[in-house]
Amino acid sequence: MKTSEFEIPKIDNVLREVIQHKLDNKAKPVGSLGRLESLAMQVALIQNTATPELRKPVMLTVAADHGICAEGVSACPVDITWQQVLNFLQGGGGIGLLARVYGMELQVVDAGVNFDFNPHPNLIDAKIRKGSRNFLVDPAMTMAECMQAFNNGRRIVAKFNEQGTNIIGFGEMGIGNTTPASTLMSIICGIPVKDCVGPGAGLDQDGVSHKGRVIEQAIANHGISENVLENLARFGGLEIATIAGGMFEAAARRMVILVDGFITTSGMLVAQELNKRVLDYAVFAHVSDEQGHRRMLEYMHADPLLSFGLRLGEGTGAALAFPMVQGAVAVLSEMTSFEEAQVINTSHIRFEEKSVQ
Amino acid sequence: MKTSEFEIPKIDNVLREVIQHKLDNKAKPVGSLGRLESLAMQVALIQNTATPELRKPVMLTVAADHGICAEGVSACPVDITWQQVLNFLQGGGGIGLLARVYGMELQVVDAGVNFDFNPHPNLIDAKIRKGSRNFLVDPAMTMAECMQAFNNGRRIVAKFNEQGTNIIGFGEMGIGNTTPASTLMSIICGIPVKDCVGPGAGLDQDGVSHKGRVIEQAIANHGISENVLENLARFGGLEIATIAGGMFEAAARRMVILVDGFITTSGMLVAQELNKRVLDYAVFAHVSDEQGHRRMLEYMHADPLLSFGLRLGEGTGAALAFPMVQGAVAVLSEMTSFEEAQVINTSHIRFEEKSVQ
Repeated sequence: MKTSEFEIPKIDNVLREVIQHKLDNKAKPVGSLGRLESLAMQVALIQNTATPELRKPVMLTVAADHGICAEGVSACPVDITWQQVLNFLQGGGGIGLLARVYGMELQVVDAGVNFDFNPHPNLIDAKIRKGSRNFLVDPAMTMAECMQAFNNGRRIVAKFNEQGTNIIGFGEMGIGNTTPASTLMSIICGIPVKDCVGPGAGLDQDGVSHKGRVIEQAIANHGISENVLENLARFGGLEIATIAGGMFEAAARRMVILVDGFITTSGMLVAQELNKRVLDYAVFAHVSDEQGHRRMLEYMHADPLLSFGLRLGEGTGAALAFPMVQGAVAVLSEMTSFEEAQVINTSHIRFEEKSVQ
Repeated sequence: MKTSEFEIPKIDNVLREVIQHKLDNKAKPVGSLGRLESLAMQVALIQNTATPELRKPVMLTVAADHGICAEGVSACPVDITWQQVLNFLQGGGGIGLLARVYGMELQVVDAGVNFDFNPHPNLIDAKIRKGSRNFLVDPAMTMAECMQAFNNGRRIVAKFNEQGTNIIGFGEMGIGNTTPASTLMSIICGIPVKDCVGPGAGLDQDGVSHKGRVIEQAIANHGISENVLENLARFGGLEIATIAGGMFEAAARRMVILVDGFITTSGMLVAQELNKRVLDYAVFAHVSDEQGHRRMLEYMHADPLLSFGLRLGEGTGAALAFPMVQGAVAVLSEMTSFEEAQVINTSHIRFEEKSVQ
C-alpha cells in the first residue's frame, strides 16, 4: 500500500479562534454549555466552518460471522447474526428502533454473514465470504479478503458522502465478535489478553477465561505482525475490517464519525494505527460496561459522551449520541448571541475553575 | 397546611415484574441497554403501565429576581433576568434553542421578575412581586407570598396535565439565584455553607467567599426553622418556590419530572422534604459543574443521566435528557421481542458482573 492511500486532511485550526469567539458571544455565561460547546467546536473544525450543519445522518450497522465461534467463545447461537440482520431491516432490534427514534437512516451492511439474504433497500451486499475463518487454526482472513473488506467500507461511505451525508454512525452485529475485538485491542494497545476480555453477550466466568486462552493460543500460533492490517487479517473480523475502512474514508472526507461500543471502537483502533488524524473526526458516543472498552478509549485519549452501561452494540450508543451532536451544532449555528438577544454582554466574565474558597 | 395537601401516589410495584419480563424478552442480551432500561422501568412505573408513552412534553422555565443581589452575590447585572425572558420567548437563549431542537413546548413563567412584560402566548404571568426581598435583611418572601408562589407552580402544572402533558421539564432564570439555592442546600442537607457555594455565572474566588459570608450572616439573622416552607420563605426565591410546587404537583399527577441543574435541583430538594415520594417521579438530567450540585444529588441518591459540565441552567440540561427518555420509552413500548423478531431467545443467559478471571 502506498502511504498516500491513507491520507486524511489535517484539522485546520485557523478557524478555532473565530469559533471560540462565536461560542463565547452566545447569550450565556462563557463556557456554560460545557461538553456541548467542545462538541460544537469539534464538528465545526471537522467541517471547517463556524456554522456547521448535519446532513442526511446515516447509521451503518455492519454484520459478519466469525469462525472462532467454533471454539465456544460466545454464549449465543451463531444464527442470531443473520436473524438480527433481518430484524434490523424490519425496523426491529435496538438499532432498528433507535435509528428511527433519532431520525437516522439505518443501512445494514452484510460484510460476511453466513446466510443468503434477499435484496432489501436498506441492506448493502458487501459479503466477502460467509464468515471469517476460525483464527485459532487459520488467519481469520487472507490479506486480500481483509483489504477487500476494508475497501468495501471505504466505498460504501464514499457513496453516502457523495449523496450528501456528512455524519455517519457505525455499529455492528456478529455473534462472537468480542473475541477478535479483544485480540486486536491486546495487540494494538499492548494490554495483556486477560484485561481485554469480558463476558460479551453473557459468558460466565469460565467462558471468559476460556475466551482469553483461545486468544492467547491464536496469537502464539500466528504471531504478531508489525503491520496493523496484517494483524487485522489474522485476528480480526469482516465487519471490523469494513468498519475500519469506513471510518477511515469518513475522516478522509471530513465527515463526523459516531463511534459505538467495544467492537466498533476496535475498528477505530485499527484505523488510527493507519493515521492518527482519524481521531479528530471521531465522536466517541459512550463508554460501555464491556471489560476493556474503557481502557481502549483511554488508549485513544477519547472523551466519551455517555456512560449508560450499554453493552448491546449494533450502533445503539452511537444513535443515542446523535441528538447530543444535533444540540451542539444548533448551539453554534443557531443560538442567539448577546447582541441578537439584546442581552447585556457578559462574555468578559470568565469562569474560574476551583474558585471556591 | 393539612398533611393531605402533600399527598403523592405511591409507586405501585405490582407491574415491576411484568415490565422486567418484557424488557428481558426484547431481542437483545438481558440488561444490555443499561441505563436506558432502568429509565424505561422508572417511566413505566410512574405511568403504571408496561407500554408507557410521552405526551405533549413541556419545558417550564421559571424566572424571578432576587433582592439578595444588592449584596453583590452575582457577577451579572440583574437586568439580564428580564432580557433573557424576552430572549427565550423569541426562541433564543440556550433553552429557547434546545426546547425547539428536542421538540418540547417552552413555557416561561414570570414568578417575580422586576419588569412589566407584554402578554405573550408562551409567557405565564405568575408574578408575586418584582423580585424577592434582600434576605440578608428581611425574609426573602412572606409566608403568604411563598405559599402563593408554591401554589402557582401547582396550578400551572395541573393545567398542563389536564391538557394532556405527562412529562415536564423544569428550568430557571434569575440572576443571583445560586445564593438562595446554596442556602437551602446548606440548611436541608446539613452541609456547611462553604461547601454549598460556587461561582455561579462567573464569580471570582473573592466573590464566592463573599457569597458564603452573606449566606452565613443571613442564616444567623433569621435562624433555621423546622418547617421547610418557612425556610423557603426566608432564604428561597420566587422561582424556586414555584418550581418546588410545580414538581410536587407533577408527582401528585404521576407525571415524569425532568430536573435540570443546581437551582432547579434545589426546588426538588424542597419538594422532597414535603414528601419523599416526589423523587420516584424525578429524572435527574445531569450533574453540573456548579459546586455543590453533585453533593445535592448524592443527598437525594439521584443517578443523573449526563455529566456534561453544564452550568447554564434555564432547563438546558433537562432538555438534553429528553431524547434519552424518549429512547428509553421506545425500548419498552416499541422494541421487538425475541418472538416478534424471530430471533433465538437468549433471555436465559444472564450477564454476570465481574465475570472476568
